[in-house]
Formats: sequence, structure tokens, C-alpha cells
Amino acid sequence: MSFSAVSTIWVLIATVLVFFMQAGFAMVETGFTRAKNAGNIIMKNLMDFCIGTLIFWIFGFGLMFGVDNGFVGIIDFFTVGNYDSILPSGISKYSFIMFQTVFCATAATIVSGAMAERTKFSSYIIYSALISAFVYPISGHWIWGGGWLANLGFNDFAGSTAVHMVGGVAALLGAKILGPRIGKFDKKGKAHAIPGHSLTLGALGVFILWFCWFGFNGGSTLSMENGSIESAGHIFMTTNLAAAISTFTVMVITWIKYKKPDVSMTLNGALAGLVAITAGCNAVSPIGAFFIGLIAGLVVVFGIGFIEKVLKIDDPVGAIGVHGLCGALGTILVGLFSVEKGLFYGNGFSFLGIQVLGVLSVGAWVLVTMSIAFLLIKKTVGLRASKEEEIKGLDIAEHGLLNAYADFTPMVESMYEDIEVIQGVIPLDEAVPVQLKTSKTEVVENKKLKLTKVEILFNQNKFEALKTAMHAIGITGMTVTYVLGCGIQNGKTEFYRGVEVDMQLLPKVQVEIVVAKVPVKRVIETAKKILYTGNIGDGKIFVYDVENVIKVRTGEEGYDALQDVE
Amino acid sequence: MSFSAVSTIWVLIATVLVFFMQAGFAMVETGFTRAKNAGNIIMKNLMDFCIGTLIFWIFGFGLMFGVDNGFVGIIDFFTVGNYDSILPSGISKYSFIMFQTVFCATAATIVSGAMAERTKFSSYIIYSALISAFVYPISGHWIWGGGWLANLGFNDFAGSTAVHMVGGVAALLGAKILGPRIGKFDKKGKAHAIPGHSLTLGALGVFILWFCWFGFNGGSTLSMENGSIESAGHIFMTTNLAAAISTFTVMVITWIKYKKPDVSMTLNGALAGLVAITAGCNAVSPIGAFFIGLIAGLVVVFGIGFIEKVLKIDDPVGAIGVHGLCGALGTILVGLFSVEKGLFYGNGFSFLGIQVLGVLSVGAWVLVTMSIAFLLIKKTVGLRASKEEEIKGLDIAEHGLLNAYADFTPMVESMYEDIEVIQGVIPLDEAVPVQLKTSKTEVVENKKLKLTKVEILFNQNKFEALKTAMHAIGITGMTVTYVLGCGIQNGKTEFYRGVEVDMQLLPKVQVEIVVAKVPVKRVIETAKKILYTGNIGDGKIFVYDVENVIKVRTGEEGYDALQDVE
Amino acid sequence: MSFSAVSTIWVLIATVLVFFMQAGFAMVETGFTRAKNAGNIIMKNLMDFCIGTLIFWIFGFGLMFGVDNGFVGIIDFFTVGNYDSILPSGISKYSFIMFQTVFCATAATIVSGAMAERTKFSSYIIYSALISAFVYPISGHWIWGGGWLANLGFNDFAGSTAVHMVGGVAALLGAKILGPRIGKFDKKGKAHAIPGHSLTLGALGVFILWFCWFGFNGGSTLSMENGSIESAGHIFMTTNLAAAISTFTVMVITWIKYKKPDVSMTLNGALAGLVAITAGCNAVSPIGAFFIGLIAGLVVVFGIGFIEKVLKIDDPVGAIGVHGLCGALGTILVGLFSVEKGLFYGNGFSFLGIQVLGVLSVGAWVLVTMSIAFLLIKKTVGLRASKEEEIKGLDIAEHGLLNAYADFTPMVESMYEDIEVIQGVIPLDEAVPVQLKTSKTEVVENKKLKLTKVEILFNQNKFEALKTAMHAIGITGMTVTYVLGCGIQNGKTEFYRGVEVDMQLLPKVQVEIVVAKVPVKRVIETAKKILYTGNIGDGKIFVYDVENVIKVRTGEEGYDALQDVE
Repeated sequence: MSFSAVSTIWVLIATVLVFFMQAGFAMVETGFTRAKNAGNIIMKNLMDFCIGTLIFWIFGFGLMFGVDNGFVGIIDFFTVGNYDSILPSGISKYSFIMFQTVFCATAATIVSGAMAERTKFSSYIIYSALISAFVYPISGHWIWGGGWLANLGFNDFAGSTAVHMVGGVAALLGAKILGPRIGKFDKKGKAHAIPGHSLTLGALGVFILWFCWFGFNGGSTLSMENGSIESAGHIFMTTNLAAAISTFTVMVITWIKYKKPDVSMTLNGALAGLVAITAGCNAVSPIGAFFIGLIAGLVVVFGIGFIEKVLKIDDPVGAIGVHGLCGALGTILVGLFSVEKGLFYGNGFSFLGIQVLGVLSVGAWVLVTMSIAFLLIKKTVGLRASKEEEIKGLDIAEHGLLNAYADFTPMVESMYEDIEVIQGVIPLDEAVPVQLKTSKTEVVENKKLKLTKVEILFNQNKFEALKTAMHAIGITGMTVTYVLGCGIQNGKTEFYRGVEVDMQLLPKVQVEIVVAKVPVKRVIETAKKILYTGNIGDGKIFVYDVENVIKVRTGEEGYDALQDVE
Repeated sequence: MSFSAVSTIWVLIATVLVFFMQAGFAMVETGFTRAKNAGNIIMKNLMDFCIGTLIFWIFGFGLMFGVDNGFVGIIDFFTVGNYDSILPSGISKYSFIMFQTVFCATAATIVSGAMAERTKFSSYIIYSALISAFVYPISGHWIWGGGWLANLGFNDFAGSTAVHMVGGVAALLGAKILGPRIGKFDKKGKAHAIPGHSLTLGALGVFILWFCWFGFNGGSTLSMENGSIESAGHIFMTTNLAAAISTFTVMVITWIKYKKPDVSMTLNGALAGLVAITAGCNAVSPIGAFFIGLIAGLVVVFGIGFIEKVLKIDDPVGAIGVHGLCGALGTILVGLFSVEKGLFYGNGFSFLGIQVLGVLSVGAWVLVTMSIAFLLIKKTVGLRASKEEEIKGLDIAEHGLLNAYADFTPMVESMYEDIEVIQGVIPLDEAVPVQLKTSKTEVVENKKLKLTKVEILFNQNKFEALKTAMHAIGITGMTVTYVLGCGIQNGKTEFYRGVEVDMQLLPKVQVEIVVAKVPVKRVIETAKKILYTGNIGDGKIFVYDVENVIKVRTGEEGYDALQDVE
Repeated sequence: MSFSAVSTIWVLIATVLVFFMQAGFAMVETGFTRAKNAGNIIMKNLMDFCIGTLIFWIFGFGLMFGVDNGFVGIIDFFTVGNYDSILPSGISKYSFIMFQTVFCATAATIVSGAMAERTKFSSYIIYSALISAFVYPISGHWIWGGGWLANLGFNDFAGSTAVHMVGGVAALLGAKILGPRIGKFDKKGKAHAIPGHSLTLGALGVFILWFCWFGFNGGSTLSMENGSIESAGHIFMTTNLAAAISTFTVMVITWIKYKKPDVSMTLNGALAGLVAITAGCNAVSPIGAFFIGLIAGLVVVFGIGFIEKVLKIDDPVGAIGVHGLCGALGTILVGLFSVEKGLFYGNGFSFLGIQVLGVLSVGAWVLVTMSIAFLLIKKTVGLRASKEEEIKGLDIAEHGLLNAYADFTPMVESMYEDIEVIQGVIPLDEAVPVQLKTSKTEVVENKKLKLTKVEILFNQNKFEALKTAMHAIGITGMTVTYVLGCGIQNGKTEFYRGVEVDMQLLPKVQVEIVVAKVPVKRVIETAKKILYTGNIGDGKIFVYDVENVIKVRTGEEGYDALQDVE
């Protein structure tokens, strides 16, 4: 067999782009959900691809492309068989397996968004393996593997149905069976917004997906010889137009509906257009692509609303609307808009009928098999994280990850630093006189019930040292707040892009300690020792009277509430 | 017409890369500006591309590439005409339209950075449509569409002038007519730094742009046949060298000027080199590219300073300096460094003169047309957001988006959770005795003027429940702070990369309620009921005396200041 | 010489992808470290590439590829020589230089992660120049430049040794000579976790690197003619499989070891598999790739643990384990798994011996030369930032960058705004009566020792005005906290994705001012004037008694502690 350099380049570059959709999905799904689940979502995306890769190699590819009876391919462990009869012209076996592998992994990943923020990680792994191993390859066989739908003339060029609708229907089932996130619907069934933690990363994800979609659709020519050369340009044109008009349409609709153009829904709009044009990108004209995109924009806005408000299904990223609805829609619209076979071009209903049949049969296949899969998982290992885990966040609950942004906020930056190293360097002037003005401060050490709050304001880099010292003198609890100290200070001038930065607000730590047993004087003296460097900005200590303190767990008050270790 | 597989692959992959520049611009512009406008900037970038795509298809391409009189192409609605006479050899019509579409959208996007953080969204949409529809295609026609500059021998290989300077001059006008952001210049006209919210994302954007620039410049061979094969490698070499030396130069200059190498200016330096080499990447030698990059680095640092400090124009991302100045500069420098036609290679002044003429005439064209456009928009729908909107941020003002990072900070993560679901599960021990020590706490409920602050420190996941309960007993206001509770606790050990994480600081919520009418006792009892689970970490309640409280709006004090609903 | 279009396309696109690895490294290294060093890490990555580009052009390429004596190439300034004898078939000189340039820059960048958060920027620049100029080109010459290892039959197809192990060994040396970050190891030598600031960006970086690795390995065919066509697909297959199984393996191991699958270590696992397969991606079967990935997964987990816990070397991102260990490992495993020459395929020990020899000799070369380089830098300009700089963060210390996320948190958004512009617009009702209830508030102005805290809660956009006004009446310090005000308010309804957003929590600023000399009444009156607009939400002022205040630097108390300017 002789191989085509141009076709191979085309298919392999498309493979690289479709692989990168994993990054796009990871960013969209992470950005549209809460920070406390970011690490978990990344792990799920990563595992979708890794497990999909392994399973597709071990036997998925054979199931999908092995020569067969029309319903399912063959079991060919580790894909060692000869596939010459089904390989695209000029494409080697491994090039084709790789191209198909990245498509398979995409289908699995779509679901993770809809099931985000509440699915058990181990159960997700099982789901991911099942869809990659059986559900996707078998319906894929019908469509692309020479199966019965292919023989009927079903047209799903790059996978509106084979990839996106399969993922979208599984997403619908998964989200439905899981139930909504805590707080998504109140007792009256009213939906509440749970905004994601980074729309910027979500938008980056959408740009990445659009970028990769040129490979997804363009690469599906599987060739860059003869007619495919012109076809590739055509596919780029229709793909891009449908996405552009869909995005624009969603912006306009949300502007009308909510008075202001909605950012995250508009981002979904871009994906809706891309999903919808995928089936027919080679078969419709630019005008056809325009209308497919327009309709996708309409469908995705109202569809997402319907899924959430009527069906009461909680889909954090809109995956069901984008991939499920627009996948089905796009496939059916080829029956109308296909220049060669579509109804609108005077070709009758038969092709349209086949498109509808394909959507319905694949939809039914996924519904049945994934229902069984999800219910089996639910009954055995369980599908959903516990309420406590969900509230704490899956990052800490499932991965022991305190936070994917542990050190993110500038104020916490020195939290983990062992400042003792530095302590030795600074000349600690022990002689600074500690003259408590007894008239006003009245630190009545003997009177057990006298409660006092000592509030210490100082530089962050002393925090660890202060904490350690306070523990040493018997302080068992403190409240730490990151604040800005605002003072007139003659600091060094710093430049940002050549312009002086105004630096009057400096980050500080405020520690509040309420004491009864430990003498206020000792707390103050200790703080002074630790914080003193002799430089401007060493900090201040404030002392307040406290009327009472109650410990919730025990109901203890006053002195007693402060004594034990918690 | 027969098509070339290799040329088509080359042009289409370049198209994909140039499309992805939208992501690069989005990240640079978002990262270099404030978080409160992130969603707005993303929407503008997205719309630049979507509207540009639609308009360029509807008639922009015809205006730019239709056969003509030398000044402007033809109106060819939906680009249905035959362009065989102007298509590059071996490239299909749609491939070429797509390649040109992504270039058009780039020009429009350049402006959004300079006009960031203060432009009305609807006006921006109109601007974006106008530049894509008329300004860019017409000057583009002069240069690339067989117009008069092309006929004179003007060399702007990949668009230093046609794309970047057009965008840069429009950016200059837009930023000038808009005026500076609030706070950018003080009354004395001194510039203040307004640092962006994520230099990391800004840097990612610059890396993306550099990555895509290989497509921008390399793909502009429009061919991968014959001489273009070698030329492509040459273009990669000059493009990369100019960018590298420009970046390095800026780092060195800022190091000398501000004593420390400036990160964000250095990132601008990379783009400056890329813009400057774009016109002559095919025509200059590596040595020429080196000098073009070096000069671009010098020009961008001093140019950005000049625009800001002398012209008093507020360009949040440096777009005018990068695209405007370096676009013009790069085009003119081809007249000096072109190996075949440049002055420095002994070819006289005529080619240099044509380059200067091209820059001046395109600059004048954009100045005139965009001035009219911006002033018309200003007079009709208005160009600038209101001061209130600008201060609140365009995300909330224009898009109803509370914040693009609503849930970002780890501390706010459970803010929206309906914890009532959980409430039922926890055994609430109602019998915990509430014994207020009347001696010290002295909650004098009858004395109207006694004001008391109750400060409650507890776990975030109880916040919603506590808030609801407090409202139920008549509390109408509270202050919520996210703090870190520091205590000695025997928690589970968590690992990060196999190393134990120190977990003594735990995120807590601190709620402060100042009461007069509602009895302190009832507040405390209610808090205890809600917060009690019997587990370690249920929280503490502190009680303080308050001397007075004043409500600003009414001037009411004490008891009265706390009574109404606000 | 005639050029091949397909080979050139292949090599140039691989070049673009390998260039983009810089973005991947930047995101991984930034995300896995602390926010206070983000800008510094970006600068280092940027400079690695820019300096590498320049040096490789100026003489590095000649050293690596000039025809020679087997040990080192030639000095060919500005690479003007003729390389026809060594250029890959059909590839032009500049195409080949560009491809090699991006590989060179990758080696340098690997080190920056291991040396992150504590290296002097100027020293890093010197290191980066040295590795690009001498260390990498010379060992690269042995392997790829026709040197002695190449002549022996050493197989390092895409650079497990030539690129990754060179970087990894330099990383080991750099991290060792630098010493650990402050706080990484306590006095007992126990390692502490220092979590990175954005695992999401770290994950994006890993996805980018995987994406680019298809170019790194695939492009190393340096051809898309004849056998290379099939080989390219084969390389994609083995590369992807090894990465997938390695990632999966690490997840499983960490799940077993730490009870929970570790996110960041699993991300390292992906890179480990990619590094390990790089040497033999063309030579091993998919089954071989599977085992190489599996072993890499095992090695990276235990290797990173060993480096940290036994060797006590602090490598913030795991670069030594990933690139050093897995680079060496992957190279040696080719000796076992190579289908044509490997031991496991019955080909004896000689090839394996050559692989081991190559690893050892290149390792020794890097150890010796980089030890000299790092020690020379250490003795002259110094290698490590000062402790103060390290604690403050390299962004502010090295680049004068307050924070790469200066404005990130939503609460600080209006910090820099000059609200005076707005002040004029609002009708300030000066007539609002200020009736201080003297009975309870008792602002005893004459009694010097009476200390009072005035706590003002108000909208963020008034902050600048309030600050200025307070300074004007003599207030020299205040504490600013960003809090959430929770009240019942009839605000406008905002929508997020078509769902109403609950808006009861509004961001506010809380300013605390403790006064003695300045009359409390004046503070309150001033605040009222500034804050009054007559609209709901103007804010509240609370007054508390303060028992004492101590200034740490001077030891002054009460009235005295508040008087001077700090």
C-alpha cells in the first residue's frame, strides 16, 4: 500500500488539533464551575483521554471499524489486525487509529461538564471506560464503520451525531440520574445561578475549541488529494460561518431577553454553531451554513433554558444543549440543507428521513445503554459524592487538594513560609520598654471574667513566627484576616510599564486574639518581640474590652469558652 | 482550475493559526486590564471575529478583492462571484476567503485593547462592523487587492500596514476620542499605573500570538510550491529573530530605565518585533530582521511612554505603540533592509519612498474615515460608558455579570449553597443549655440605647442557613468577612504531591451584627442552634459593646440607625 | 538543491508546535509555583527562548551541526555557512535552523522550573545563555550532529537525552546548588508542601505540552516523503500511548499511596510518559510504548519522592524527575524495546550498551560543564536571591511588579480609581444634621487618653475620596478590609445564563480608624459628607471604645502611638 504525504499531513495535523480539544473542554468546564472543583474536573478530562486512548487501542477500534455484520465490528485485541480494506486512501493504519482515538475521547469528555461538581471520581472513571469501550464504538460503527446507517446513506460527516449527540445524550442521562447540585434549585423548584469561577478561562476554552474544530471538521475529509483539496476550504468556510452567526444570534437573543448580552451563554452559542455544522459542513453551501448556525443559536438559548427550568436538570456548562440538542439538530438539518440531497434543494423527503432515523436510533442506543450503565454504577459503587464532599468541594474530598489555587490570592502568599530562618538575622531589640499604661488598659489578670481582645496588625511575612510564638504562650485560637494597611509611607517607587505605582495601600495581616487566662500583657510583649525590627511598618497592637464569648459546640461562655484546644 | 494540495494545506493551517490569534488577543487584553471588565473584553473579541466573518462574507471580500479601478473593489453580496483571475495559484476560492477573513478580524480586534474598560458595548459593535466593512477592505484593496499601492510596488508582505497599522491608527483615534479611564491621569496630568489583573494570562496571550504569527507571516506565501518552499523557512527565521531581539531589547532598556526589567513592557516588546517584521519577513535577511527587531524594541518602549506621558492618551494594553508605531516602522524599514530593493543594499530611494507613501496614505485613510466613524458614533449612540458604569465595571454594567471570577477566591466558594438541604441531616441538640452570664454580658434589653456587636465565627457552609435565620428574627444587616481561623486541630492529613500539607489555617466566615432592638440573647441562641453540630470547629461567638452607630444616608444614630430595612 | 514541499510543511509545522511548548512550560511552571513569582517565571521562560534564538543563530547552530572531528562542530558566526551536506533531504537551511532552534530553547527552559522562586534573575540569564551556547550544542553534536555517539549508533530519535536529560541534569545541579526554598524543609529535614497558585493553569500547560509533543516527536522524522509518511503515524501512536498509560499509572499509584489520586503528580505523569517515549517513538511498537509509559509512570512518582525526601533537593515543578530521570530511562529502554535492535527482540546487549553509554556520557558532560557554570555564577554575580527578596517574592524584588494579579480579586477593583471626578456630580446635602447623642457616645475630646475606634462600612467606589478626606483632617493610618455587606435591598435583577442571580451580598469596604487627638466627631462628620449621596446603601458608621494601642517599633502606647506618620 502506498501512502499519501499530503493526506497524511492533513489527517495527522487534524489529529493534533482534535487532541487539543481536551484542553478546550478542560478550560470551559473548569471556568464555568466553582474553584473548589477545578482539580477534579481537570483529572476527569485527563482520564477521559487517557482511558479512551488505552481502551480504543485495546479493542475499541476493532469494534468500530472491524469488518462486520452491520451492527458491530470485531474484537481485535491491541488492534493488531489488517485494516487495509477500510483505511482511507493513502492513510496508514496508525495514522487512522490516532485520528479516531482523539474523536472517541471527545465524546467521553462532553459528559464531564454536565456531571461536574457532584460526581464521584471513581464512578466517573467507570462511566468513561464504558462509553469509550462500547457505546461510542458501536454507534460509531453504524455511522462511520460501514454499518447499517452508513449503508442507508446517513450523512454525519464529522460527527454531530456520532460524537456530539452521543456525548450530549449521555450527559443528559448522567445529569438527570445524578440530580442537581446542592443549591441549584430551591424548595419551590426555582433555579439559582451558580456562577463559574473564571469566565476568562471558559472563554479561552471556547477559542481553543473553535481553533481545533477546523481540524475536527476539516480533517474529516481524511484526504488532501483531488476533490478533498477544494472540499477542505469549503468545510473551513461553512464551519466558521455557522459558528459566527450562532454566536451573534445568541448575543442578540440574550440582549433582548435579559436586557444585556450574556457572556457565558454567548460562549455556548459559539459551540452550538460548531456542533450543528459538523454533520453537514461538507454538504451545505455557505448560505446553508448561515441558516444552520442561526437555528443552532436559537435552539441553544431556549434549549438550555428548557433543560434547566422545565426539565429541572442541572447542567453546569450547558453540555446537553450544546452537544445533545445541536448535535441532533445539525444532523437533521443536513436533510434540509444538503445541496445534493436536501429537501430545500428539491430532493424530497427520503434523505431527511434517513437523517432523522439516524438521530433517533443513535439517541435510543445511547439512552438505553447509558441508562443501564449509570444505574448499574449507581447501585454498585454509587454515582454521587456525599453532600459533605460536594459542599467541601471535590478537590479536597476526592483528591486531597486543599485548593487548586492554594496560593493564588496575593495575600496568602507567605502563609507557608518558615520565617524562623530570617528571625536570626534581625537585631531584636529586647530592651524596648514595655510600659503598659495601667490606668486605661486595666488588664485585670486575676479577675477571671475579664475578656480582652488583642488585635495585632503587621506584615504578612511575620505571620508564621507570630503564630508559633502565640501557641507557645498558650494561645489556642486566633482569627486571621488579610487587610490593607493604609498609611503615609516613604517607600521605594516601583514602576509598572514605566509609570509610577501608587503604593499607599500595603497588604497586612490582622490577627485577633481574645484572651482571659493568658495575661494580655504577655500577649502584647510576645507580639512586640516577634514583630520588632526597628523599621517603619512594624505594626500596631490594639486592645479592646470583650463582653462575652460563647463556644458553640459546648455552650460554654466567657473564660471557659476560651480554654480548650480546638 | 486545478488545486495544489501542499499550497492548500499551508494556507488552511495558516488560517487556523491566524484565527487563534483571537485567543491571544483576548488573553493579552483581558490580562492587562482589570478583573471587573474581563467578560466585556472577551465579548468584544468574540464579536470582532463573528461580525468580521459575517461582513467579510456578505460584501467585504468583494470590496477588497473584486477587480476594480485601483481604489476599491466591487460589491459582491455573499461573495458568489468568480475570483479565478485573482486567486493565488492552486488555492480555491473558499480557502482564500477564509484566509483573508481571519486577517480582517485581526485588524478589528487590535483596537479593542486600546479602548478597553470604558467603551459602550453597543458602540463598540458598531465600530467593529464599520472597520471590517469599509476601512480595512478598501485600504486592503490598495495593498493586496491589486489596487494603486500594489501597482506602485508597495511591499507589505503579511500586513504590517494593511492589518496592524490600520488597527493601530484606529486604536489611537478611539483611545483619544474616548478619553482616558477614570484615575489614569490626575489633575496635574500625571499618569498613574492601573495594573492588569493577570499578567500570567497576558503572557499566555503573547505566547499564543507568537505561535500564531508563524501562520500569519508564513502562510502569506499563499503557496507551498517552488520558491515558496524555501521562502517559508526564510520567513520563519526572520520572524522569529526579529521577535527575539525586540523582546530582549525591551528587557534591557526597561532594566536600565527603571532599574528592573519590566515584565509587561517586555511582553509588548515581543509583539513589537513581530509586527515590525511582518511587512518584510520575506524580503530581508536574518541580519536585516535582527536590526528591524532591535529598532522595534527601542521604538515600542519610548513610543508607549510618549503616547501616555506626552500625548496623554490612555492605551491600557499598548496597542497603539505595538501595532500602530511598529506597523508603520516595519513597513518603512523594508525600504531600507530589503535585500533586493532596499536603500542599504544600494537600491536608491525610490522603493523607500513608495513604502513611506504607502504608510502615509493608509494612515491618512484610516485617520479620516475612522474619525468620522467614531465622531458619528459619539454624537448618536455615544461612545463611552457612564462614569458609574466604568467604576462598577463593564461586566456588571454591560452584561449583568457580577464578576467573571464570581466564585474564584477559595473563600467564597460555598456562598451560593443552599445548606438547608443538609440541615436536616445533622442532629441538632436543642438541649444545649444557653446560660448567659449576666454579670459580665449585661444584655440590657430594655434600655433602647444599649448597642451591642455580636461577632460570629464559623464554617462557611453554614453561612446561608445563618443568614436566613438572622433575617427571620429581625436582623436587617450584617457584615461578612472571609477570614482564616487558626487553631490546633486534629484534622486528616492531606498530601500535595506526596508531601503532607500543614492545615492549621482553616477558612471561616466572620459575621458581625450590631443590635439594639433585637435582644442579644436571641441572636446568640439562634446562632447556636444553626451552628451546632457537636463536631469540633462549630465556631465561637463574641460580644462587644458599641458606643454608637450612624447611618450615613439619614444621619440617624444609635437605635434608629439600625431599625429600617436597607 | 530542490526542496520538498511536504517535508518542509511537516518540519515547519512541527517547529511551530515545538515553539509553543514555551507556553506550556510557562503555564506549568507558573501554575505549580506561588503567585508572588509568576511574573518572574514568565520572564525567565521568555528569555530562555529569546536568548536561545539569538545565540543559536549567532554560533550555536554551527557548533552543533558544523562538520567536525566528532566532538564539536565549527564556529560559524551568524550561521552564514553552507550546510548542504548535513541538511535533511528536501529541507532548506533556514527551515532546519528554525526547527533546531526551538529544540535548543526547550532544553534551557526545563531548568527554570527546578530553580523557580529563588534564583536571581540576572544569574538565570547567564545560565540560560551558557546552556544554549555550549552545553546543549556540543552534546547535541555528539547525538544529532554526526558526532561520535551518532557514529556508534546511539538512538535518541527526538531527544529524550539530547534535550530532556540535558535539561533535567542541569535542573538537578541548579536546584542542588541553589538549595531549597525557605520553608521547604524544616529543621528536621522534613519536606513541607508549598502548593502552586493555579493547578488549572498548570493543567493547561500540560495539555499544551502534550499537544506540542506531536510536533516534537512527529516532526523529528524531518521528512514526509517515502517511509516517513507511515513512520509519522507510528510515532503519533507510540507517543500518545506512552503518555496515556503513564498518566493513568501515576493516578493509580498516588491513589494507592495517598488514598486519593493526586492531581499535580498525575499531571507530571503525563509529561513523564512523553519524555520517556521521545527517544524511541519511531523504533518501538505500540506494545513497547505501553511498557515504556508504564515504567515512566512508576519512575516519576518514586523518583520525585526520592529527590525530595532523600536527596533533599527542592524541585518545585518536578522537572528533575520528569525530564532527567525519564529522559535517561526512555533512552535506555530503547535498548530493550527497539523492534529492530532491542534486547527484548533478541538483538543482544550491544545496542543497549550504546544507549547506556550515551546516557552516561551526556550526563557526565552536563554534570561537569554545568557544575562549573553554576559555581562560577555563584562565586561571581551570585546565584540566589536574598532571603528578603525570596519572601517578598521575585516579582516585586526583581521586576518591581507589585503582583502579577494586582487587580485580580474582585474586591480590589476600584482601588486605584480617582473618584473625585465623580464627587462633583453628586448633590452633597451638606444640611444633613449631625446630632451626636452625647449621652452614649461620650466623645470626650479633651481627655487625651480616650481612644476610640470608628468603623466605616461603605461602597468601594468612595474609598479613594474617603482616604483623601481622612488624611486631610489628620488621620495618618487606617485598616482597610474588603467585606461583604448583607442587607435586604431592592436591587436590579441580574441574570447569569438566563437565571436570576441572588444579590443580597454586596461587596463593601470596611475602614477602621482608631483616634485620640482627632475628634471622633470630626471623623464622623467627614465620613458622612464624603459618603452621603442620598441613595440606599450609603453605609454605616460604628463607634467603639478602645482600651489601648501600642506601636511596635517605638513601644509607644495610647495617644502617643497614634500621632506620628508611618
